[in-house]
Amino acid sequence: MAANIDTPRAGYPHFLSVATRWMDNDSYGHVNNVTYYSYFDTAVNEHLIRCGGLDIAGDPAIGYAVETSCRFARPLSFPETIDVGLRVVRLGTTSVTYEIGIFRRGDDEPAAAGRFVHVWVDRASERPVPIPARIRAALMPLVVVP
Amino acid sequence: MAANIDTPRAGYPHFLSVATRWMDNDSYGHVNNVTYYSYFDTAVNEHLIRCGGLDIAGDPAIGYAVETSCRFARPLSFPETIDVGLRVVRLGTTSVTYEIGIFRRGDDEPAAAGRFVHVWVDRASERPVPIPARIRAALMPLVVVP
Amino acid sequence: MAANIDTPRAGYPHFLSVATRWMDNDSYGHVNNVTYYSYFDTAVNEHLIRCGGLDIAGDPAIGYAVETSCRFARPLSFPETIDVGLRVVRLGTTSVTYEIGIFRRGDDEPAAAGRFVHVWVDRASERPVPIPARIRAALMPLVVVP
Amino acid sequence: MAANIDTPRAGYPHFLSVATRWMDNDSYGHVNNVTYYSYFDTAVNEHLIRCGGLDIAGDPAIGYAVETSCRFARPLSFPETIDVGLRVVRLGTTSVTYEIGIFRRGDDEPAAAGRFVHVWVDRASERPVPIPARIRAALMPLVVVP
Repeated sequence: MAANIDTPRAGYPHFLSVATRWMDNDSYGHVNNVTYYSYFDTAVNEHLIRCGGLDIAGDPAIGYAVETSCRFARPLSFPETIDVGLRVVRLGTTSVTYEIGIFRRGDDEPAAAGRFVHVWVDRASERPVPIPARIRAALMPLVVVP
Repeated sequence: MAANIDTPRAGYPHFLSVATRWMDNDSYGHVNNVTYYSYFDTAVNEHLIRCGGLDIAGDPAIGYAVETSCRFARPLSFPETIDVGLRVVRLGTTSVTYEIGIFRRGDDEPAAAGRFVHVWVDRASERPVPIPARIRAALMPLVVVP
Repeated sequence: MAANIDTPRAGYPHFLSVATRWMDNDSYGHVNNVTYYSYFDTAVNEHLIRCGGLDIAGDPAIGYAVETSCRFARPLSFPETIDVGLRVVRLGTTSVTYEIGIFRRGDDEPAAAGRFVHVWVDRASERPVPIPARIRAALMPLVVVP
Repeated sequence: MAANIDTPRAGYPHFLSVATRWMDNDSYGHVNNVTYYSYFDTAVNEHLIRCGGLDIAGDPAIGYAVETSCRFARPLSFPETIDVGLRVVRLGTTSVTYEIGIFRRGDDEPAAAGRFVHVWVDRASERPVPIPARIRAALMPLVVVP
């Protein structure tokens, strides 16, 4: 199920500011659809590292993306800086579903919105494991009733 | 609605071979989830350019991505070369829905599968327009009954 | 000739802050060498757009990269935010040579430093043309005696 | 020192075919200068993995890029497939200097050419170490007298 593109800025409890880059633009002069997913990835992992102490190189449990989706409402272009809203719409034992809203500066309606499902796995065996306690603690403040 | 990850290799009428790149791998040593969407984009546009004569720089009507999604079943890693299957599950007046299957060499089951919805718009006004005849002709052989 | 990696932070008249992204990291957990060049591109074009009024879609004269280089002194990793220093070491009739310093927050010595040579060309003919007056005016404050 | 852009196709002992991608093109409809360096990286590492048994995840010694450069002679555009020529112009105890030529299909003169210097380091200490024997054996056939 794709994200609800109707969620306005006020529906997101957390934001990360992301500056677009020259190479984000494609032949049509807009940020390429692929690149939006790098904003998703960046917002999610920045939060987990900063608030949850995620250690990319050393943690025994890591998050694998198992499903992502995005709806695109209006184009973006370098050099604008965007606000990436992040919220959690489902927090299970081994997985978490994020919703991400991409907002142009000053806009209340998203330019795009997506979903991202992370499953926690053991780095070596790649088998699902419970979300570590400090990661869960970092996710709790982002949980919304959808 | 995300792609049906159960569609095997035989369910795709067209394939493009894509070589992974060093920088496709992320910190976990796997192709980053973002990069799969660049395989989608590449397979779709390569087909439209080669078979439909799409002229990126000059055509008055161009395809905008309005919705994309992907489910990930098993990881990929540089330096493998993958087979990107492409099929059309809906061909409307102004839009087309593709399904894309990402297959490791020799595998019948996809490592990932996704959807990509293209809406044709006038380049200047960005308003929807009918899919051009030569583009439609290029899409027809890819249509499957889902 | 590659950039002089000895130029400290004080040697750059202009800076752009760039946030790294999850996918900037490669399999070794460091920002991939390729990605540094996107920081170069972004710093140069952001300045030209903001201060020189560069219109990517409409200007008859555009800048082509004809030579780039970079020396790498110490690694960077997502999620750090870096300061990209920009200066002009040669301002000719049709071309400009930039030096770019990549600084970790709080460091006086660069983590990497590079050169980027832009030649202005007519968009249609791809033949060199004089640097437009408003672009030149935007470059003048960045000129240093190397 | 940047690569000698005069080296024709016949000057390279090894080639890797690389298919361009939709997102390689920038706002001007050409492959972005940044992306050429991902072709360098890919050609070098593909060779080291296939011929030298480089194990990205496990080898104690890994190659760090310490200097790269590129000169650009003529533009490339998706969807073309290019030939990436690779040769070694200096093979030292702990470092190797590659030259890479980017050729359009059927062209004898490169569209671009660059240099890439790899220094082998211990993964943990990041101190230089001798190039491992099986890597050196893979590089020997690429050595040319420049």
